[in-house]
Amino acid sequence: MAKKMVMAIFSGSVDKLTAAGVVLSGAAAQDYEIDVYVLLMGAYAFKKENVDTNTHMAELQDKKEEFFASLQRLKVPKWIDFFKQAKELTNVKIHICGLAGKIWGGEKLEDFVDIADDIVGIGEYISAAEEADISLFI
Amino acid sequence: MAKKMVMAIFSGSVDKLTAAGVVLSGAAAQDYEIDVYVLLMGAYAFKKENVDTNTHMAELQDKKEEFFASLQRLKVPKWIDFFKQAKELTNVKIHICGLAGKIWGGEKLEDFVDIADDIVGIGEYISAAEEADISLFI
Amino acid sequence: MAKKMVMAIFSGSVDKLTAAGVVLSGAAAQDYEIDVYVLLMGAYAFKKENVDTNTHMAELQDKKEEFFASLQRLKVPKWIDFFKQAKELTNVKIHICGLAGKIWGGEKLEDFVDIADDIVGIGEYISAAEEADISLFI
Repeated sequence: MAKKMVMAIFSGSVDKLTAAGVVLSGAAAQDYEIDVYVLLMGAYAFKKENVDTNTHMAELQDKKEEFFASLQRLKVPKWIDFFKQAKELTNVKIHICGLAGKIWGGEKLEDFVDIADDIVGIGEYISAAEEADISLFI
Repeated sequence: MAKKMVMAIFSGSVDKLTAAGVVLSGAAAQDYEIDVYVLLMGAYAFKKENVDTNTHMAELQDKKEEFFASLQRLKVPKWIDFFKQAKELTNVKIHICGLAGKIWGGEKLEDFVDIADDIVGIGEYISAAEEADISLFI
Repeated sequence: MAKKMVMAIFSGSVDKLTAAGVVLSGAAAQDYEIDVYVLLMGAYAFKKENVDTNTHMAELQDKKEEFFASLQRLKVPKWIDFFKQAKELTNVKIHICGLAGKIWGGEKLEDFVDIADDIVGIGEYISAAEEADISLFI
């Protein structure tokens, strides 16, 4: 049986989402089944209209330029592309928390990036986290 | 035997505390026993004098107005009310880390919100996390 | 067999690193074997040239003065000293994520604090987290 990772993404910031993407790519390379639950601020970042323009940082605000320049220099994929690539490699499901979506005006699945699979309640996250081999809150 | 969740709350910001509250309410609905350990910046938010006035955000600072307006529009409970409701529903214990409390001038249990159960050292958190079915660091 | 903690440190901010240090000291006191994986913004903080000058905060920016004054008043060790002390007490290994290091211009182990043990890929973190009794993402 495949190993399972459950990743709760609270964050809507590019630095944390990039870290989440790196972890996701590592888990995908090890054939994990991965359930991503997009919580509060994460739902902002996963909205279709924000995904290309969002440059928020959770940390080291004054290093923003250096950070983005380094990502470009090292050809690090954009955070959303880590998620897309992981989906192509293994079984990754992306669940948007319904309440979180509504907070940012996202009522329907079409309001979010195409790789989002469904809109769920918090109960599904709890049940999944319990079964996970690795559970992360990001 | 009841399932156990251990939630370390580092954060003192309303966005993260609201996410913590939503997760807590989901776990309470599934009859989890929950131990909350309030760490560094969390102790600021759990101080009696700050609970109603704190409007700090950990993320998306420039979306603060939209965020708070949405919480109100959707009638999302205040973060502290999620914690109170979870306590009424199931066995939730809230432990303040002693060092964290002192950093914000809180020496005694009475300095913190009424739903705080005791002041503990970090060792209790480690022991509890080891036994948890779900362990989160928020 | 010793209990194992795996701590992923995304954060490069003093408040979160101090909380990580407190948790680490608690785990060391309980004889945990601890693997620390230093991810994205963490690699900034673990660079030799930044460790003494970094005063970034992840939260409660406007309480920065009070926070640092309290740390001093209560004689709380600097975050890096928690890590050093834990290393003296028990088996603590500190792994720098190679990509994270490069983002901040750190190519070699000597670019990071002396207590860093090696530079690794994300795959090692995934494998370690799976085996952990306590796994934290900070």
